Amino acid sequence: MINTGFPLDGPTLGEIGEDAVIRSIIEASPSAVNGDDAAVLHPPSPNSRMVATTDMIVEGRHFRSDLTTPFLLGRKAVVQNYADIEAMGARPLAALLSFSAPSTTPAATVTEIARGIGAELDKYGTELVGGDVTAGQNLVMSITAIGSLGGNRPPLTLAGARAGQTVVAHGRIGYSAAGLELLEAGITIPEELEPLAHAYQSPELTPGCGMVARSAGATSMTDNSDGLLHDVGVLAQRSGVRIDLRANAIAPDKLLVQAGELLGVDPWKWVCEGGEDHTLIGTLQGEAPVGFRPIGTVHKPSSETGSVTTAAFGIPVTIDGNAPQYTRGWESFS
Amino acid sequence: MINTGFPLDGPTLGEIGEDAVIRSIIEASPSAVNGDDAAVLHPPSPNSRMVATTDMIVEGRHFRSDLTTPFLLGRKAVVQNYADIEAMGARPLAALLSFSAPSTTPAATVTEIARGIGAELDKYGTELVGGDVTAGQNLVMSITAIGSLGGNRPPLTLAGARAGQTVVAHGRIGYSAAGLELLEAGITIPEELEPLAHAYQSPELTPGCGMVARSAGATSMTDNSDGLLHDVGVLAQRSGVRIDLRANAIAPDKLLVQAGELLGVDPWKWVCEGGEDHTLIGTLQGEAPVGFRPIGTVHKPSSETGSVTTAAFGIPVTIDGNAPQYTRGWESFS
Repeated sequence: MINTGFPLDGPTLGEIGEDAVIRSIIEASPSAVNGDDAAVLHPPSPNSRMVATTDMIVEGRHFRSDLTTPFLLGRKAVVQNYADIEAMGARPLAALLSFSAPSTTPAATVTEIARGIGAELDKYGTELVGGDVTAGQNLVMSITAIGSLGGNRPPLTLAGARAGQTVVAHGRIGYSAAGLELLEAGITIPEELEPLAHAYQSPELTPGCGMVARSAGATSMTDNSDGLLHDVGVLAQRSGVRIDLRANAIAPDKLLVQAGELLGVDPWKWVCEGGEDHTLIGTLQGEAPVGFRPIGTVHKPSSETGSVTTAAFGIPVTIDGNAPQYTRGWESFS
Repeated sequence: MINTGFPLDGPTLGEIGEDAVIRSIIEASPSAVNGDDAAVLHPPSPNSRMVATTDMIVEGRHFRSDLTTPFLLGRKAVVQNYADIEAMGARPLAALLSFSAPSTTPAATVTEIARGIGAELDKYGTELVGGDVTAGQNLVMSITAIGSLGGNRPPLTLAGARAGQTVVAHGRIGYSAAGLELLEAGITIPEELEPLAHAYQSPELTPGCGMVARSAGATSMTDNSDGLLHDVGVLAQRSGVRIDLRANAIAPDKLLVQAGELLGVDPWKWVCEGGEDHTLIGTLQGEAPVGFRPIGTVHKPSSETGSVTTAAFGIPVTIDGNAPQYTRGWESFS
């Protein structure tokens, strides 16, 4: 079953007013530390470091209100921020929400977004600790996530990949992009392909997988938010390495192949260029940690596997040693 | 001298692309911890607590591009967030920026905003540690500020005011509102009134004043962002007290009176209803701390000074024992 659509009626933000809007958000996603000028958080352990990240979501740019629901949008907004916290090997602690929408927006839209935010935050035992609401031309929200990096190991950075390591991934690759194209096609989506639409509307992130990878010795990590090859390419560039992905480890699965046939799209495009799966991708020496699978290997920057060079196709990533066919990533101002 | 206006030409965000936009922001407001999935921060002392707040700024709602400059807008965006950190008695540590604007926006607009942000962050020895940029219908930015609350004293909350305390203020009251009306009037602003316009374009916040008040024994604090009586009213309500302000301590000064005469406005309106001065207002037993001045007193909720009751005018705040004439505050969805 696929739910789509935003509330169309009921009292509006302008009718209920700012105080009631804020109250409805706090009710839907409660926290004892929300409601003052700023939220005071207690670090979970004395030697932990703070980690912070932010993402902005713009209606018409990052989502269409006819292709998702406000509840699922709220969940997804948290996932995309918490994935960035996990990708440092850290543990999410709290989130803040900035929100603007026209005064004519049904108040239920905001309540549902806040419910979705609260539901996802709950999975982590975390809370919405602060925010700001305001009128604006269209729906724009910005979530900031704060996390905690415990212990003495370094964070998992984009620059931490080293030649000889294994590339590992946790979660689906290409599902979100395929799901979006299915939803955009305006067709009745076959029941067996619904997991693709769900992956787009509300990608799944397993709490703690970034910390697991860090404990297992991972040294670099990111999530595929802008496209697999784009994001792996950034990691390879920052680390000064070349990454070779194994075709049979990332090959489109049955669902992606079926969706590709239905829409007349090469499913490899979704795998290579699709973002928003928020699948964690890291590198480490040796075996893949629990929940992760190997998808490639890290090499020295000067290729030794043949004629492939970085300059030939822009990013230092190959698939089975060859230049990939699809390398585009998300570009914010295109 | 009053500067106004945004860049009108030069390369656009769409022309230079996301990577170059991000680079220009990081160059204008540099930080060694910016640029990964999330920023890792070191707490300044082992027993400190994190403090976080966020604010959203929408073009046409919170600012007009013909009444300010992108540099001043960047500074102000930091001040309004850092004032919330100071209002907890905490020390600002870092900021994150989410930013959306049409692809046709001159790239110089973003660079100038980032320069303003960097200039203000610099005053605190703090850095822009992360962010997100995206295309959108209009310019919307959200700043999140992170601070540190050291030591064992409790934070300065909205609920901390107690009967018998003195109300103290640090900074101007009413200047920003008067400055906005002068700028909106489209007149040539007399040179002696320029400080009012500057207060609107870029309010001043003295680093450390919140910590000073906390050290001096303040128990509650806020800043006048939405209007003096509104914000003091929220503090009084949350604390379960009534606050009486001294008319001669908050009376419009020479500049406000002169601006009122010029525009035909009662300057008391700017004092009572004007926000965005981001002046810290707190309560404590005894003398005003360095940099603060007494502006009123805290009383038990049942008024003992006469016939004034909360119900009569909505908020538990009086001026010299009387119901104030101007009590409106900023309403986000009006």
